[in-house]
Amino acid sequence: MSELRQNMATREWVIIATERAKRPEEFVQPAKERVEDRPAWAEHCPFCPGNEELDLERLRLPAEGDWTVRVVRNRFPALREEGDRERRFAGINCAITGVGHHEVIVEARLHNACPATEAIHEVEQTLIAMQLRGLALREDRRVEQVVYFKNHGSAAGASLLHPHAQLLGLPVVPSTIRARIEEARRYFDDQGVCVYCRMREDEQRQQVRMVVESEWFSAFVPYAAFSPFHIWIIPRRHSASFLVAPPEELRDLAMVLRDVLRKIYFGLNDPDYNYTIRSIPEHEPASESMHWYVAIVPRVNRVAGFEMGSGMFINTALPEESAAFLRSVEVKD
Amino acid sequence: MSELRQNMATREWVIIATERAKRPEEFVQPAKERVEDRPAWAEHCPFCPGNEELDLERLRLPAEGDWTVRVVRNRFPALREEGDRERRFAGINCAITGVGHHEVIVEARLHNACPATEAIHEVEQTLIAMQLRGLALREDRRVEQVVYFKNHGSAAGASLLHPHAQLLGLPVVPSTIRARIEEARRYFDDQGVCVYCRMREDEQRQQVRMVVESEWFSAFVPYAAFSPFHIWIIPRRHSASFLVAPPEELRDLAMVLRDVLRKIYFGLNDPDYNYTIRSIPEHEPASESMHWYVAIVPRVNRVAGFEMGSGMFINTALPEESAAFLRSVEVKD
Repeated sequence: MSELRQNMATREWVIIATERAKRPEEFVQPAKERVEDRPAWAEHCPFCPGNEELDLERLRLPAEGDWTVRVVRNRFPALREEGDRERRFAGINCAITGVGHHEVIVEARLHNACPATEAIHEVEQTLIAMQLRGLALREDRRVEQVVYFKNHGSAAGASLLHPHAQLLGLPVVPSTIRARIEEARRYFDDQGVCVYCRMREDEQRQQVRMVVESEWFSAFVPYAAFSPFHIWIIPRRHSASFLVAPPEELRDLAMVLRDVLRKIYFGLNDPDYNYTIRSIPEHEPASESMHWYVAIVPRVNRVAGFEMGSGMFINTALPEESAAFLRSVEVKD
Repeated sequence: MSELRQNMATREWVIIATERAKRPEEFVQPAKERVEDRPAWAEHCPFCPGNEELDLERLRLPAEGDWTVRVVRNRFPALREEGDRERRFAGINCAITGVGHHEVIVEARLHNACPATEAIHEVEQTLIAMQLRGLALREDRRVEQVVYFKNHGSAAGASLLHPHAQLLGLPVVPSTIRARIEEARRYFDDQGVCVYCRMREDEQRQQVRMVVESEWFSAFVPYAAFSPFHIWIIPRRHSASFLVAPPEELRDLAMVLRDVLRKIYFGLNDPDYNYTIRSIPEHEPASESMHWYVAIVPRVNRVAGFEMGSGMFINTALPEESAAFLRSVEVKD
């Protein structure tokens, strides 16, 4: 029988539709060109070595010699760096000038790479670049929230093949993020403990939804996963902000993130996916109740009118089966 | 310059990305097979006349003679009609048995119809069927919220071609819907007026985002539309529930909804779309602060990691231009 499960941190309900559930193998993508079979360098790719637009560059790692990872200003930014953050009242409506930041992290030199096929060192440099740019954007008082994400594949919204992630510095705190903070605070008030820490401890004890465990992180399919192979990677040490994660944690996260993405890549034949790093608003004090983490969502099913109408999701895979499948995928180099 | 606009009812922010904005014409879909060019009857379609599975039928209109519209139980329901609504505590997690209703409204006899090409009478019968089934589901005390929606086209999640809409009777109130009710109540507390009524009056006064106006409804692109051609159809008379709309309003809504869908169909060359009817939870008292309405979202752009990470949207079309474009599309029969 189907059941509705509640994510205890966000309090969102999801329908786990076991009656229409598919086995994990049914989500394996049809055969297609492998990422590695594409050209390693492309003449018109703005991210390939030799095509760098230096005026857009914000960071390169390492600073000397051949770069591994670069951060550039988006050529078609959703928000502009220039100008004041101003509220504009248009009659009864309210707007804010579109100021902020929109940057692209070029994750590797090779045009035909992706995190699943990159070296751990490259994934680590990507995370370090994200953190350095997040720290820089936080210095801009117009920025209320930095959003970190990656779109892999066209169904996930990627328009360029060269592996890249993005970050935006927003001049507002999105209401969804405010709502999550409020829910976590409420749990803390009632229970005296961070709800994300409690969830992670519980998953570690139960093991049934665990995918990868490391020294500093636990990667699992949440009890109320909203889609097949939806994964959270949560730091074991309580911390509300990605920006204060020390180097050893970033190195460890690079290993875990890459392992999870390799399991998805090889186990499901490279589905398109998104991931995002969720961290507290920039001017929020270090919080006992909120917890930063990485969320990964492979695009193996479709979001439709029901999700639009209800804000809920129907997951056609059992989280325990998704996790067992991913655990079974061997991804050693 | 881009700007962030706030929807005054939901308080959600959206980035109106004018720097990367497209003209309305750029959203016109590439040439494809027209709906009308498909066969009018299909041997294996479970919704075509002659293939009716009577044991699944919940309603037919008219009751005698050839039906115009039928409602059937979904053959692969996300929720089951049988069983008790029970909370199950699995350690620290919480679940509810997957009981409720999942029904399909077959909107027309013809396999190759869609609301844009149907007669007004058929659209009206669809709305009447939705309302009748909503009223029936509300009698089931296990049902907290009925969700009404349509998926048109495969990108919008439709798996069968025969025109159909759906409704689900959920055993919980989704947290997104609770949040909207709370925001509307807050506005009412401050201002003493329904925020949706105020929005509609303002759109009517300004006219710049209006698409269709009728005796009982206003259809407009919201000031903070979250995607190109996102449209709200709001009743002019304050009412929190779709279920109490009288026959003359449903008839009028059928005309407006069909006009809007025809403008989208002919103006944008039949993009896939979703629509949903938003109405208060079933056991909520008639509310001064909440307002029912129809929301339509053509699937002309992609949702990606940014939306996942922030809960916000980037709209690459100016709402005023989307509305002007739709106003200019002639859709007289």
